Amino acid sequence: MTVSRRTPGRRPGGPDTRGEILRAARESFADKGFAATSIRAVARQAGVDAALVHHYFGSKDELFIEAMALPLDPRVVAARILDGTREDLGRRIVAVFLGVWESDEGQQRMKAMLRSVVTSDEVARLMREGMTRMILEPVSQFLEPPDAKLRVGLIASHMIGVALTRYVVELEPVAAADLETLVDRISPAIQQYVTG
Amino acid sequence: MTVSRRTPGRRPGGPDTRGEILRAARESFADKGFAATSIRAVARQAGVDAALVHHYFGSKDELFIEAMALPLDPRVVAARILDGTREDLGRRIVAVFLGVWESDEGQQRMKAMLRSVVTSDEVARLMREGMTRMILEPVSQFLEPPDAKLRVGLIASHMIGVALTRYVVELEPVAAADLETLVDRISPAIQQYVTG
Repeated sequence: MTVSRRTPGRRPGGPDTRGEILRAARESFADKGFAATSIRAVARQAGVDAALVHHYFGSKDELFIEAMALPLDPRVVAARILDGTREDLGRRIVAVFLGVWESDEGQQRMKAMLRSVVTSDEVARLMREGMTRMILEPVSQFLEPPDAKLRVGLIASHMIGVALTRYVVELEPVAAADLETLVDRISPAIQQYVTG
Repeated sequence: MTVSRRTPGRRPGGPDTRGEILRAARESFADKGFAATSIRAVARQAGVDAALVHHYFGSKDELFIEAMALPLDPRVVAARILDGTREDLGRRIVAVFLGVWESDEGQQRMKAMLRSVVTSDEVARLMREGMTRMILEPVSQFLEPPDAKLRVGLIASHMIGVALTRYVVELEPVAAADLETLVDRISPAIQQYVTG
């Protein structure tokens, strides 16, 4: 292994320092999970000072979100979904989720994410924990018991399946349908999981 | 390229002849689609006589099914799904589809298939055409118009999404739920697409 002369020991932050912190974070979150990952350990692994990790990413939550490389902050997605009544929740879930996929950039990043999830156990673990903590748990607290978590999991499974068939497999007529038709058609199925 | 002394010109069928026919078939079905693929052209591509392709695979339908490498003949899946009333169709779809995934061998093969679909455009095209011809079209003819094909596409998207979250991503509590609970929970959402 060669070490650049410009970055001996703990680096003050070079052109790829941010990337190295993210790589170390991704590895730790996937291996140990969110709770057992510390900013200090990530910094050590990346060969930088913990203060630099805080400088680049702020909190552990934000480091985690950056490590997932999503096109949108999942906390923003959850907040948009939960902003309204329970009677319209099904429709908001479908509209917000498909909205993320409809832009060209969102679609590229979500496709790459979906491919990594399916081919890498590490990425699958990362996304599983991230989605659960930041979207599924807040949404399931909005639902009536008893099996709110299972129902939210099934909502997620349907939304991921629509994304897979529409944007990746391009199965017709799901791929060619306009967004409004899709939202109209899917919302009642999702709402049914909401009301239980 | 080297040619084995045992198989000069058109081969009578060696240990990997079947595999070579399948490779040629997969390529042609993915590139040109089902209708434009002929057994004669597949045989030529594989360097064997067309009679040998018929001997190994019977019809073009069967060659196509083998090329998709599914754990179960999709025509059998469609027949099981359609064997009953429209009022119970949602439940049969869920039970039959998840049944294919529940055995260890089925799960291994379906996982491999799902990974290939997501990472290879060729496999995605192959599966898209196969699923449409052999499962989605027969099932959509069982539904009332007007948008039966879209609704069947959304049923497929939900089922694929459940498979992805339960068996690949292992999202909880969908992954740990017992089969009966899942069938009970998902069937009403699917039935809703059936009745429109």
